[in-house]
Amino acid sequence: MRRQEFQIAESEQIEQFLQEKHDGVLTFVGADGWPKAVPLNYARFGGATYFHGSKKGEKMSGLAADSRAEFVVYEAHAFIPSYFSDPYLACPATVFFRSVRIRGRVEQVEDAAEKAEALGALLQSMQPEGGYAKIDAADPKYASSLRGVAVMRLDAEDTVGKFKFGQNLPEARRDKVLQGLAERGLPGDARTMEEIAARRPTSHDM
Amino acid sequence: MRRQEFQIAESEQIEQFLQEKHDGVLTFVGADGWPKAVPLNYARFGGATYFHGSKKGEKMSGLAADSRAEFVVYEAHAFIPSYFSDPYLACPATVFFRSVRIRGRVEQVEDAAEKAEALGALLQSMQPEGGYAKIDAADPKYASSLRGVAVMRLDAEDTVGKFKFGQNLPEARRDKVLQGLAERGLPGDARTMEEIAARRPTSHDM
Repeated sequence: MRRQEFQIAESEQIEQFLQEKHDGVLTFVGADGWPKAVPLNYARFGGATYFHGSKKGEKMSGLAADSRAEFVVYEAHAFIPSYFSDPYLACPATVFFRSVRIRGRVEQVEDAAEKAEALGALLQSMQPEGGYAKIDAADPKYASSLRGVAVMRLDAEDTVGKFKFGQNLPEARRDKVLQGLAERGLPGDARTMEEIAARRPTSHDM
Repeated sequence: MRRQEFQIAESEQIEQFLQEKHDGVLTFVGADGWPKAVPLNYARFGGATYFHGSKKGEKMSGLAADSRAEFVVYEAHAFIPSYFSDPYLACPATVFFRSVRIRGRVEQVEDAAEKAEALGALLQSMQPEGGYAKIDAADPKYASSLRGVAVMRLDAEDTVGKFKFGQNLPEARRDKVLQGLAERGLPGDARTMEEIAARRPTSHDM
């Protein structure tokens, strides 16, 4: 069996991560049969993941022909240099991260009300302070823009979160990593230390 | 013709971006026919892009069956709220970003010396301060780790960089965005203002 380097995250942790982040990479098989990787902003709404974009181009044509997709959201929290725990070998160097992969099918949203709601959720996640008129399919100032933009909905068939914060490390090595982070003190290191501590296995797990 | 929202970057700008960044998403078609999206650290070395990972698992089996891949590196530089340039509509809200997509085939590296050099480049990019013994196929302390790790090389057939910093905006709107960024002053906003200014079209481009 392969060594489990990371924790498979619970759905609540996954949703929290997806709410924190704003962009990821949408992957699909293009019309030419090649895999495609497109960075996109997203919003979670009604349990699905929404994107918007142009009505023309490789995303729309590729996904129209084959709606299978995977969307991945990733955050590198801390680079862990090898010397935190080993004075000679480079091998312990690693990155502590969170990632979520959502596999499912992407459908184009045609309903004007659903489009407006999804775009509203996208704006709300990026611009929570407001400063714009509510996106409303009935507002004539929005009608033409709404018709012109494509909105896509990814319905998840499978969602997997991997959160790696040293869960697989022997206790002595994890303590050295914690000490190294405390001394380094880069932005993000304090949060990483909290994540490590929260996931420290209890003795019966080891 | 579609509106060009971004600049297609020159190869020198692309290489500089790839040197700055450390992770991206590798996309391939899995053994089950579904597209797969895997976040990975990378290093550029000898004109190719290198990754490392486990010798078993979906990456290795998927890419062994179909070596076609796309790797994307993305950085969101600044969210541009709609109210920077429009008091009513949400539509001008956008993100200024840089992205590079590399399309090509992924081969597993079997040669011990090339593996050691690629892993050395990965470590150098993440841990430039050193603090480890040079990764050397002849060092018995590294020999077993080198045999155990998989190193993959992506040879580019096509590389496209998209750098979006308001190139398509009318001058008056771009000036409002610059003013909004100057007033907001978030980390990264000063750099974004430089990128916008560097790409401001000269009058004969407009």
